[in-house]
Amino acid sequence: MDKRVPYSFASKVGKAAFSIAILIASIADANPEVIPTSTPQTPRAKVLGILGGGQLGRMLALSAANLGVKVMVLDPSDRPPAAVASQAVKGHFRYADDVQNFASKVDVLTIEIEHVDAETLTMLEGEGTVDIQPSAKTITMIQDKFAQKEYFKEFGVPVGEFCDIPDENALVHAANEYGYPFMLKSKRLAYDGRGNYVVHSKEAHTIALEKLGGYAHGLYAEKWQPFEKELAVMVVRCRDGEVKLYPVTQTVQRDSICHVTETPALISESARLRAELLAKQVMNGMEGGGVFGVEMFLLADDVVLLNEVAPRVHNSGHYTIDGCVTSQFENHVRATLGLPLGDTSLKVNHVIMLNILGEADGKRGEELAGELIDRALATPGCSVHWYDKSGVTKGRKIGHINIVGKSMQEARDRLGALDPKALERFSP
Amino acid sequence: MDKRVPYSFASKVGKAAFSIAILIASIADANPEVIPTSTPQTPRAKVLGILGGGQLGRMLALSAANLGVKVMVLDPSDRPPAAVASQAVKGHFRYADDVQNFASKVDVLTIEIEHVDAETLTMLEGEGTVDIQPSAKTITMIQDKFAQKEYFKEFGVPVGEFCDIPDENALVHAANEYGYPFMLKSKRLAYDGRGNYVVHSKEAHTIALEKLGGYAHGLYAEKWQPFEKELAVMVVRCRDGEVKLYPVTQTVQRDSICHVTETPALISESARLRAELLAKQVMNGMEGGGVFGVEMFLLADDVVLLNEVAPRVHNSGHYTIDGCVTSQFENHVRATLGLPLGDTSLKVNHVIMLNILGEADGKRGEELAGELIDRALATPGCSVHWYDKSGVTKGRKIGHINIVGKSMQEARDRLGALDPKALERFSP
Repeated sequence: MDKRVPYSFASKVGKAAFSIAILIASIADANPEVIPTSTPQTPRAKVLGILGGGQLGRMLALSAANLGVKVMVLDPSDRPPAAVASQAVKGHFRYADDVQNFASKVDVLTIEIEHVDAETLTMLEGEGTVDIQPSAKTITMIQDKFAQKEYFKEFGVPVGEFCDIPDENALVHAANEYGYPFMLKSKRLAYDGRGNYVVHSKEAHTIALEKLGGYAHGLYAEKWQPFEKELAVMVVRCRDGEVKLYPVTQTVQRDSICHVTETPALISESARLRAELLAKQVMNGMEGGGVFGVEMFLLADDVVLLNEVAPRVHNSGHYTIDGCVTSQFENHVRATLGLPLGDTSLKVNHVIMLNILGEADGKRGEELAGELIDRALATPGCSVHWYDKSGVTKGRKIGHINIVGKSMQEARDRLGALDPKALERFSP
Repeated sequence: MDKRVPYSFASKVGKAAFSIAILIASIADANPEVIPTSTPQTPRAKVLGILGGGQLGRMLALSAANLGVKVMVLDPSDRPPAAVASQAVKGHFRYADDVQNFASKVDVLTIEIEHVDAETLTMLEGEGTVDIQPSAKTITMIQDKFAQKEYFKEFGVPVGEFCDIPDENALVHAANEYGYPFMLKSKRLAYDGRGNYVVHSKEAHTIALEKLGGYAHGLYAEKWQPFEKELAVMVVRCRDGEVKLYPVTQTVQRDSICHVTETPALISESARLRAELLAKQVMNGMEGGGVFGVEMFLLADDVVLLNEVAPRVHNSGHYTIDGCVTSQFENHVRATLGLPLGDTSLKVNHVIMLNILGEADGKRGEELAGELIDRALATPGCSVHWYDKSGVTKGRKIGHINIVGKSMQEARDRLGALDPKALERFSP
């Protein structure tokens, strides 16, 4: 029998999981019997379980492979993107039974999406039976964007004005206080622009409420921030508490979806220091290990306000794969397992990330994405990261391209060769 | 049914292969029935088959994942290192039936080891049924190190003196011509020092012959080259003939096994130009697409001689993963499929590669490797690449560490922190 079969990995997978999972180890083995092993000796020998198997799970699994760390993912798809380099278990990260069953198979449990069944995570963490990174408390807090804002405000993090919107009175009050436009948002399950509505006038109240599912859905309002740029700082926090920051990135959204990022951001030294300070303040409120994406608004006079925090690897950190010594993905693996944190510094002078977003549904969308990829394959400095999703729909994230350059100008020229319109989105 | 299941991939795998292979796509799918597809529309949709599933296959498969390219590997192990991100088919790359069966499942066939059944490849290529990259002719020629040297000499490539050693007379003649020491080598199946013997005296003839299997095994002799440094240039040749060179690397061997590489090599401009010229001359003799490793000797007065050529990704090119825009692994995938070649330039100023070699057999070897990895995880600029092999034996390649630096000194200082003895192997 091949001694390399990861026994601790395979032995944890029961017959039920077998029928729905890609059980790489046992299938590969001529003799499916596996021998139980003792507790893993080193953090690298642990099995890392990820709730969610999308593109973030895919890039986590590919990074973990470099370290020899085994990964399992829980995902409702038949073959999620992460399955390329992990054992995919079919099930939903929002169903208690699926989460509990999956948790029993892994040594450390983490997430690639925050909209998971946090109640079950809290219960499992309370029982002390599952090692959850970051902590269930942190995941729960971040799931509710209103609670998140209140929480960080208490930690002294600069945030814009916001208020709860439980009813009509509160909505009218917010409109009077903030003026138009203001943001009306869902407290939960909101990302990539979903769950957000820019309210431009009193007449738009009804449609905004309708789009967001009404007061019962849980809403809050934010004063409109006349930002000059949007910034993000990826932060990695080891489970033992050590924190390292990645460089400050500028993010550019298209239809509320991250489209392009540029690192280092072209901002003043004062703005950079404030962004870094804000990211550190945010981390004071975090528990457990992992990477966190801290999104911010840069206003006039170098004022920096928190926008929101993701308790996971994040689109605004994809540039780290080709631009930094240790990517956000590898550092998330390290942080959750308790390995030393990797070097977060840039190893190139400049790096731009361009998301490959579906430009149309179906065949036409595939063709347009294919043309962009072909241009990237033929352009110096470019690295293509394709997610192998089940199909293209308009606005869907289906891959990204990292573009490195010896200078900002070189990187921007290369971006211009790929997508002139994306280049236009940068202020000079 | 999940539309993402790669039909062209799964449909090619019959029942026989199923029983011995990791059939990721079908297992993951709740309904194992697969729907045949038409010919892949783009090179990225092709299935790349690799003969051999060791660490080189592993890194090829991980690179292919970024492009969304599906990979299958043929390997005799139950779970070869490459299985982390590929479909592993159990079988031997030196057995005709296994190679032929495997070839029928893939769109393009390539190698990660040159010691494959080249006769079968030549037959399949002759029939026009299998797309083999690089060509079977090139693989066959390179398998025989003596034939290789004769071949490149005809192409005007500078090579040191060498001669066939069919019998005792030839051996004595070589000793008289070259003096001691000289190299006695196996023509075939030689790598990592295996198949090489440094003959220091007439008394050593008998032991040298014994170690190398005698005249019948196929031997040749090389004049000893008093080299100042060993150099390597990785070259990628697209199947359409386009060629790109990577920077010139210095390689340092330990017990005839690659131990450390440094890029760019600290050599004169004249030596660099000669090394690049030699690599280009070598490529004139190549057919088909792929990456080639060209190893050379740098003698006094900037004289550069060919040592040998590998028709595949190579240990001396591992630095490209973290040091160059496009790694040798991704470029091999691109070259074999006919995608545009990626940018071979360095994106960092300096990069050192340190092989993790087994320092002892078994448990003690694992401990020592673990200690080296722990140091690397905690040292800035370092990236660990672990191969997940079945165990540690003395001298076995079990991983490598890439070390980037803003300067040669910074990279070397970091190497010194990991392995002071490895640092000593560089001349100043």
